[in-house]
Amino acid sequence: MKFSTIADKIQTAVASSLIANPGHDPEIAGVMAVDQASAGALSYIEGDKFASFVATTQASALILPQNPTLQAQATERGIAWLSSPDPRLAFARAIALFYTPYQPAPGIHSTAVIDPSATVGDGVSLGANVVIQAGVSLGNGVCIHPNVVLYPGVRVGDRTVLHANCVIHERTQIGSDCAIHSGAVVGAEGFGFVPTSQGWEKMEQSGYVVVEDGVRVGSNTTIDRPAVGTTRIGRGTKLDNLVHIAHGCQVGEGVVMAGQVGLAGGVTIGNRVILAGQVGIANQAVIGDGAIATAKAGIHGDVAPGEIVTGMPALPHKVFLKASAVYRRLPEMYKTLQRLQRQLP
Amino acid sequence: MKFSTIADKIQTAVASSLIANPGHDPEIAGVMAVDQASAGALSYIEGDKFASFVATTQASALILPQNPTLQAQATERGIAWLSSPDPRLAFARAIALFYTPYQPAPGIHSTAVIDPSATVGDGVSLGANVVIQAGVSLGNGVCIHPNVVLYPGVRVGDRTVLHANCVIHERTQIGSDCAIHSGAVVGAEGFGFVPTSQGWEKMEQSGYVVVEDGVRVGSNTTIDRPAVGTTRIGRGTKLDNLVHIAHGCQVGEGVVMAGQVGLAGGVTIGNRVILAGQVGIANQAVIGDGAIATAKAGIHGDVAPGEIVTGMPALPHKVFLKASAVYRRLPEMYKTLQRLQRQLP
Amino acid sequence: MKFSTIADKIQTAVASSLIANPGHDPEIAGVMAVDQASAGALSYIEGDKFASFVATTQASALILPQNPTLQAQATERGIAWLSSPDPRLAFARAIALFYTPYQPAPGIHSTAVIDPSATVGDGVSLGANVVIQAGVSLGNGVCIHPNVVLYPGVRVGDRTVLHANCVIHERTQIGSDCAIHSGAVVGAEGFGFVPTSQGWEKMEQSGYVVVEDGVRVGSNTTIDRPAVGTTRIGRGTKLDNLVHIAHGCQVGEGVVMAGQVGLAGGVTIGNRVILAGQVGIANQAVIGDGAIATAKAGIHGDVAPGEIVTGMPALPHKVFLKASAVYRRLPEMYKTLQRLQRQLP
Repeated sequence: MKFSTIADKIQTAVASSLIANPGHDPEIAGVMAVDQASAGALSYIEGDKFASFVATTQASALILPQNPTLQAQATERGIAWLSSPDPRLAFARAIALFYTPYQPAPGIHSTAVIDPSATVGDGVSLGANVVIQAGVSLGNGVCIHPNVVLYPGVRVGDRTVLHANCVIHERTQIGSDCAIHSGAVVGAEGFGFVPTSQGWEKMEQSGYVVVEDGVRVGSNTTIDRPAVGTTRIGRGTKLDNLVHIAHGCQVGEGVVMAGQVGLAGGVTIGNRVILAGQVGIANQAVIGDGAIATAKAGIHGDVAPGEIVTGMPALPHKVFLKASAVYRRLPEMYKTLQRLQRQLP
Repeated sequence: MKFSTIADKIQTAVASSLIANPGHDPEIAGVMAVDQASAGALSYIEGDKFASFVATTQASALILPQNPTLQAQATERGIAWLSSPDPRLAFARAIALFYTPYQPAPGIHSTAVIDPSATVGDGVSLGANVVIQAGVSLGNGVCIHPNVVLYPGVRVGDRTVLHANCVIHERTQIGSDCAIHSGAVVGAEGFGFVPTSQGWEKMEQSGYVVVEDGVRVGSNTTIDRPAVGTTRIGRGTKLDNLVHIAHGCQVGEGVVMAGQVGLAGGVTIGNRVILAGQVGIANQAVIGDGAIATAKAGIHGDVAPGEIVTGMPALPHKVFLKASAVYRRLPEMYKTLQRLQRQLP
Repeated sequence: MKFSTIADKIQTAVASSLIANPGHDPEIAGVMAVDQASAGALSYIEGDKFASFVATTQASALILPQNPTLQAQATERGIAWLSSPDPRLAFARAIALFYTPYQPAPGIHSTAVIDPSATVGDGVSLGANVVIQAGVSLGNGVCIHPNVVLYPGVRVGDRTVLHANCVIHERTQIGSDCAIHSGAVVGAEGFGFVPTSQGWEKMEQSGYVVVEDGVRVGSNTTIDRPAVGTTRIGRGTKLDNLVHIAHGCQVGEGVVMAGQVGLAGGVTIGNRVILAGQVGIANQAVIGDGAIATAKAGIHGDVAPGEIVTGMPALPHKVFLKASAVYRRLPEMYKTLQRLQRQLP
């Protein structure tokens, strides 16, 4: 595909201000990372950390930030380029021009086991050994990869994809255009036990999980159902791998949780919250809209909307940065204090 | 079901001191969370955090703590109630009156693959695509959901439930009345490697895992077998999701581990220990009976019976709380120290 | 097997300096842990923590470190022994003399579903319900346990073992002599989303995962593929359970990662790096050859070759140890500082 064609298609999508080198329109065979790119490849530069690659990359074309210096450098090296206020988004659109994700054809594999009471929409793909239990309802265009198990009463919306070996437990309601990745377990009974003199007594988990439209659930992530009511994952929220969402959590829309995040029971997460890797949030905490928790933060109380928190226990990010910068000086501070004490009466 | 009937059934079980509003005995249709309850629902109040809901809930009946103020408030609002020293346990019993968990009927699905040398008890339910290998022994009333794999020599006790897509590796011994949740992997070979000049050499893991009666293993949790001897999970212990128990750990009875807890090799956990979410414990550590580790604690040494520890490295909880309260003042302390140094000769 | 025979076989392998008690050559029935050993067992002592067991063990034979005191003690108690500079490696070799790991016989189970375009080597074992999709290539002696799913275009090298219910996604390239444990998910699409005014837009993940020869991937571990290029796990690297490797990471050779370690996107790990349990590493960080991160370290920047880091944010290990030793004294330091301030003008 000619670079100019790619540029046109991307420009429509992201309103990038295209400036191609005059009279220079290479044929592009594919997309590659800037440090691994060879001739014929389109790549991109995001942020200062990668800027130096403009001088060394073998790519034939680049998506650049709106940076005249980098643009001049690329022109000088004979690299076709376009600039964008959001090079990463432009590159995402470029990848989609070259890559068609694997999707099985519609059809029901002969080994799939489907309860007669299940409802199956049009154009559905059910892979080998898929197990669909009583009362399940599948929308149109649903794609279920091999060895997936749906417990009774599960509902799956249109075009949702369930990857191999995930398990959806009883009564879970999954919206449209979701992706549940391999090994994820959605809707299993929450970890509800009450201490008694005879040991831990199980509290039955009679609720269910609601996954709204456009949600992504990562590989081996777990989302539990509560004793009563729902556990809810809001529209457009994206969960990475090995995330744990306990019973009764209410997660807002457009939230992002990176790998290995864990929410204890009854946590409320506002809209557009970002939780970085390995963050943990204690029972019943409320995290306001747009708040951010940096990696490994341990949150025991509420977090205000828009706040950025870090550390365990979590502090405002700037407070933590300043305190942690001093932390390594604690031994020297301790010695100084002892000396000062000796000098004073 | 009449509220008075529910109260009677719960009272028998938990010896709660029932006080119903005279002449007021609503029909209860189900159980709901106090903030989501509608007319006809029974709900409950646990702790101060939820007490304000007595003033606003639409529930027709409440289980209350032994708090005269809340009781008077409920009476005034026309809400039937009973009080209990343990409202949560009473509510657990109430849920069980309304909710029957899904359990497949006994029977062996035609797609189950069962080695002829396996022994299968009475009233067993084996779901679609279940794989039972050589020498496996299943007790009476065992329920195995679809796509579960049992490696050779596994033993499963009476009434134990194995949820979809879990895997039980060779020689694992599981007791009675256990629940192994979806995606859990029990008995796989431990992470035993010895450094040599040619790289990491595997130490064969010839031991096996013992899961005693009444244990709950959460979704996608992993329990590894050791090089020699056993990894043991004691009677009545409850493990949440995504927990990692390494080779050779000895976990006591009535222990609770919340989500994403990790034990390194050879850790010993006493009885009734509680490990909150994302706690990590290093090799060979010994945790005494009744000890508690709060969320994200990192434990590198032994913990005395009954001790509560927090932080990384873990400290006695109160010591950690006091130190962490001062942590944010480190920058100001550092400046003060420098100023004092300048003032002294 | 006679103790002298065992000693001979181990000695060949590890060049241990065997010294058997003259005229004393017990029959050994098996290997056991030193604190659980009974008569007829061979066990071993590693490090000072276990040395006291020489005085109490019921084992008939021991592998000891090169420690004359322990050797004399064993001789006195009538315990046959051999000494080795690496007792753990010698014991690993001893276990292998007594233990044959379970490995299914070659053959293809009648319920395996194999796409006609797949290539299957000689002596392959494919278990029940295994699903092999289009274009997959399996080397000689590959062993795939039940309920494993291979997406299209996967390549698996000779003698590699895939345990039950793991999932290998499209285009993943796995080398020879690897072990992928149960529930692991390799090659699923990375967590790539770009913020837009309409929410999070998915960046297609057109790359693939490369797992080189001799790699071990633990149970329920996840390794994601990147937007472009590869995610790579180097030769001989060993990953424990529930580890998360995000899109585009480049992991060197002979690396060890313990349970629940998480790498964010684009992390580079040198050769022979050791990451202890629950370590987290942020995007694009570079960890030098031979570096070590202790348990729960949170790494946000680069780590030099050979460095040992601890804590969150990670510091040089010795710096962290000294600072954390003072941490508990923060309240007392704070009070002292306040007093000194009052005493000075």
